[in-house]
Amino acid sequence: MAEKRARERLLTAALDLFTEHGVSGTSLQMIADRLGVTKAAVYHQFPAKDEIVLAVIGPPLEQLAPIAEAAQRRRTPSARRNAALTGIIDLVVKNRRIAAALTFDPLVNQLVRKHPAIGVIEQLQDLLTGPDPDDATRVAVSLVSGGLMIAGSDRRLTALDDEALRDHLLVTARRALR
Amino acid sequence: MAEKRARERLLTAALDLFTEHGVSGTSLQMIADRLGVTKAAVYHQFPAKDEIVLAVIGPPLEQLAPIAEAAQRRRTPSARRNAALTGIIDLVVKNRRIAAALTFDPLVNQLVRKHPAIGVIEQLQDLLTGPDPDDATRVAVSLVSGGLMIAGSDRRLTALDDEALRDHLLVTARRALR
Repeated sequence: MAEKRARERLLTAALDLFTEHGVSGTSLQMIADRLGVTKAAVYHQFPAKDEIVLAVIGPPLEQLAPIAEAAQRRRTPSARRNAALTGIIDLVVKNRRIAAALTFDPLVNQLVRKHPAIGVIEQLQDLLTGPDPDDATRVAVSLVSGGLMIAGSDRRLTALDDEALRDHLLVTARRALR
Repeated sequence: MAEKRARERLLTAALDLFTEHGVSGTSLQMIADRLGVTKAAVYHQFPAKDEIVLAVIGPPLEQLAPIAEAAQRRRTPSARRNAALTGIIDLVVKNRRIAAALTFDPLVNQLVRKHPAIGVIEQLQDLLTGPDPDDATRVAVSLVSGGLMIAGSDRRLTALDDEALRDHLLVTARRALR
């Protein structure tokens, strides 16, 4: 139990530092300093920074598969797109801070590309564009899916509660995708 | 002239490395190695990494003021928003690589917040939301302005030429903002 709390404290401190300095700009020593522990204590839990990043992004990434599966079961391309969109927005809103800090970090991108969830991410992109997308649709999906990550973590929107943010994102995204 | 070419080669190498490793993950030594020169040669041109980042983001940031001025001269809030949106999209498309690599980097954000252009950035945000925005509008502007930066540098869209990208972004953004 104490071990689990220590792990969560460490991941929270790491996420704070990732937000402030970027993943590449955060060292294990900085995480140790923030927690007031020795670097050896951090090493004891996570021997490398990559493992800390994976511990932060792993849980939300693992929630993508059930979203894609539920969307795939719908009958029409537009129902599949809508299910994928709703699922992604729910996930982004539940993980506002993580979306903010990590989505556009080059090191995180490298780790995501090697993560088992990468296949699901591509599948969700395809569900959002639908079959045989034209350029206009591909641009719209790119703008919306990128924009969702940003809006989820926009500091001008932090006063907005999760439910309101979710509803407004859904309306805007649907309008943008037609 | 040789000095100017050397400066441009350095900034191109730096932007490549920023894209691959993030700004925080890029050192002056890495830039020197990429160029096949000594670290002293890099220091001679740019004594600190911040100055390299500023040399990359400065020119596009300085183009924001004329966009805001032209938009301010329009009569109605909707004409002002449209002018601001068009100007921002043109700028993003002209700087696809920079938008990609730098927009969401925490170190870059710190430098932008201290840059004289920060006032213009806030003014452009206000032009996009219009007077007395409700939450729905603020979320839509956040999604669109964040999404524009991403789409400008989305590697799935690199085959798209600038003009097509510009037109599709404009149509999607207008639709998302109503």
